Amino acid sequence: MRQSRIITLLTDFGNQDAYVGIMKGVIAGINPAAHIIDLCHSIPPQDVFIGAYLLSTSYKYFPTGTIHVAVVDPGVGSKRDIVCVEIRNCLFLVPDNGILSFIVQEENPKRIVQVTNSKYFLPVLSHTFHGRDLFASVAAHLSLGVQPLQLGDATGQLAQLDLPEPFHTKAGQLKGQIIYIDRFGNLITNITREHLAQYISNYTQYRAPRSGIKSKEQGDRNQTPDTLENTSKNEIPTQDNTIKTILGRKKILGLKKTYTDVKQGEPLLLLGSAGFLEISVNQGNAKKYFKVDRGNHIIVTLVSS
Amino acid sequence: MRQSRIITLLTDFGNQDAYVGIMKGVIAGINPAAHIIDLCHSIPPQDVFIGAYLLSTSYKYFPTGTIHVAVVDPGVGSKRDIVCVEIRNCLFLVPDNGILSFIVQEENPKRIVQVTNSKYFLPVLSHTFHGRDLFASVAAHLSLGVQPLQLGDATGQLAQLDLPEPFHTKAGQLKGQIIYIDRFGNLITNITREHLAQYISNYTQYRAPRSGIKSKEQGDRNQTPDTLENTSKNEIPTQDNTIKTILGRKKILGLKKTYTDVKQGEPLLLLGSAGFLEISVNQGNAKKYFKVDRGNHIIVTLVSS
Amino acid sequence: MRQSRIITLLTDFGNQDAYVGIMKGVIAGINPAAHIIDLCHSIPPQDVFIGAYLLSTSYKYFPTGTIHVAVVDPGVGSKRDIVCVEIRNCLFLVPDNGILSFIVQEENPKRIVQVTNSKYFLPVLSHTFHGRDLFASVAAHLSLGVQPLQLGDATGQLAQLDLPEPFHTKAGQLKGQIIYIDRFGNLITNITREHLAQYISNYTQYRAPRSGIKSKEQGDRNQTPDTLENTSKNEIPTQDNTIKTILGRKKILGLKKTYTDVKQGEPLLLLGSAGFLEISVNQGNAKKYFKVDRGNHIIVTLVSS
Repeated sequence: MRQSRIITLLTDFGNQDAYVGIMKGVIAGINPAAHIIDLCHSIPPQDVFIGAYLLSTSYKYFPTGTIHVAVVDPGVGSKRDIVCVEIRNCLFLVPDNGILSFIVQEENPKRIVQVTNSKYFLPVLSHTFHGRDLFASVAAHLSLGVQPLQLGDATGQLAQLDLPEPFHTKAGQLKGQIIYIDRFGNLITNITREHLAQYISNYTQYRAPRSGIKSKEQGDRNQTPDTLENTSKNEIPTQDNTIKTILGRKKILGLKKTYTDVKQGEPLLLLGSAGFLEISVNQGNAKKYFKVDRGNHIIVTLVSS
Repeated sequence: MRQSRIITLLTDFGNQDAYVGIMKGVIAGINPAAHIIDLCHSIPPQDVFIGAYLLSTSYKYFPTGTIHVAVVDPGVGSKRDIVCVEIRNCLFLVPDNGILSFIVQEENPKRIVQVTNSKYFLPVLSHTFHGRDLFASVAAHLSLGVQPLQLGDATGQLAQLDLPEPFHTKAGQLKGQIIYIDRFGNLITNITREHLAQYISNYTQYRAPRSGIKSKEQGDRNQTPDTLENTSKNEIPTQDNTIKTILGRKKILGLKKTYTDVKQGEPLLLLGSAGFLEISVNQGNAKKYFKVDRGNHIIVTLVSS
Repeated sequence: MRQSRIITLLTDFGNQDAYVGIMKGVIAGINPAAHIIDLCHSIPPQDVFIGAYLLSTSYKYFPTGTIHVAVVDPGVGSKRDIVCVEIRNCLFLVPDNGILSFIVQEENPKRIVQVTNSKYFLPVLSHTFHGRDLFASVAAHLSLGVQPLQLGDATGQLAQLDLPEPFHTKAGQLKGQIIYIDRFGNLITNITREHLAQYISNYTQYRAPRSGIKSKEQGDRNQTPDTLENTSKNEIPTQDNTIKTILGRKKILGLKKTYTDVKQGEPLLLLGSAGFLEISVNQGNAKKYFKVDRGNHIIVTLVSS
């Protein structure tokens, strides 16, 4: 992998304290040429899920060799592992607590190394601030060309979060949930374009099967990537009389392309920039509009059903 | 224009998400040597006015060739134009929604280009995140030396916000409004030093005209820059018995130089660092003191009137 | 002192405005190669104490030659001094208002210079934004190799905050207070490891003096650094039956090493990453748990007492 001097930081340290600044001092002391980019420091304290989601929306947009450091680490100071993981064209330096869960759904790690070599830590390792004493220091050394296997031994498996998956209900609906709400109040769901295409394909075929195409079993999500790929290339019907989305007691018709496809203040469903279905309000705040929160369910159905 | 590797970012993306970090990843991938400076990311969602104000207070302090990217873009994904504008010694890459309104009051654009050449966008252009797919990418190419006219064709006119202007009332007062309130609760008005000098000059002359100087008509603000320039060089009388400012039911006497010219906890009027009259409370918060908000009116009069 | 191109910024400017971005523009215009690192911009407005605390937790982690700029400056525009202070291996450029108080408890300044040479300021010096017109400009010149004595004359003394010190009560308890609460709700006290070791040593010795070791007087904190150093090397007994901490009506037994030494949601006392005793709740928020605030007292006693 080509070397990069870019180190990204994602933490739950917020901006009230100097924790992030201190990490940057440590990095600059070891590699003055490191190029540090803040990914996000506003992860709610100890919220590994949010960290995992935001990291997954970001890493693809960084150049080859980027070192992504994620410190959302409720187990700091305990026996939890710290791992250096090579995925795609970049490195992740993270506590092994599931923070790569979204990413490894898409990409298989090429290598997982347990970080144990204290040669690359600060001389004194505190019990409560490994972001400073370990992560910053190790990341800086990686940016100088230290190889993952110099940090410790290869290992096999990563901890996984139990990510909620959308599913087909007995009533023939697609049921997902809100997994993230952004600054604008956009409600990001766990339903991808592929999930939606598959759902529409299933139920459209069920009611009007074309000859030679076997009707798929309801709820069957164990299909091969090839099938998904082909499905996803199908056009998704987006007119108001095709699909409807139900959130609480409110309904949204169709699938729009962008916010301004509806009037100001009106809600819409669209495919968000991270690849998930998203409910928004044009120039408004969908969280306030629908009075919902993370974890609330969303139902997508065919209008004709 | 001399090349610079500085790209500033001003957005309404906040710091809760990873949107800004992602933009930086895109830039670093295209031009690893780009020097990215955050101007502000806390613009209230879709508030083009605030973005326009903060941008205008900042751009003059950056070196020649700086590329200022402003993404406060309620029309993202719609047919709104994106423009690359050369003003003074720097470039602005912005949606054409009036975000340059304050700046073009002071400086005429040298060139306005409609950004249409998708060669400089990311390969896949989303409908909701042009900050990532277009602005970041184009800015990075500009920082590599791409010229504005390579981005698209020159165009003539920029969209303009309807900026509130202070005016002279029939009662002979100068009436402005609060256009911005900063972190400290300082109330920044739309009255400049020039407005104040002009007002004082008018009304002082009205009551005591010197021979050979024609009394100016009340409310006449169509004067030439020369006149304004000359007026502004006049000393503005600042003693407590010269002017008074009225905000709600409270009054402030005189024009002070700095916060500590009054006792701790007391209000004052001063000329703020961005060139506008500003109401502050020494080591306090004027917004809370006066219980006011953006848009509230402020009246300046001569004490003797 | 070896030259560094690192400039850190600590201010009370927040992130709502563009004040910090503007400072960076000024720096980049003077020294495009300066490497700016944000330490913290969320200091509560005019809260010099918090600025002093956070600065003291950070500076040691930066490389030799780093220029630390701290702008928490209630006296901006008044006759207050601005000083450039050489401490350890780095420079501080600060208003002389006590913001170095925590640091000079640990390290003697090597040189203090009054910054008066306007050659290194921006051409126009505003009365309200010296962060831009003076601090940013001077810091950039320092990063280019300007020497402190080129900024003005050496001076002798720094202003000092009246920092609260822990003390021994007549009842034989160690009484400190909460001086800072971080993003996670951790309660950082003014009791250092040395204070605690000294306290335990005193009272343990008092009850069971070893021959040849003189019992120390209660409340005697004027010991030499040597004594403190030796004391701090002693093991501090940490078991639940050794010391107890009282905060409001709640008690905490023992001294833990890290958050996960207690169950999730339970409080603990530990030695924090900045060297002070700290009260935390494992994966929780001690500020909310104890319903306390800065300034609240904390009492440490021996369990046996």
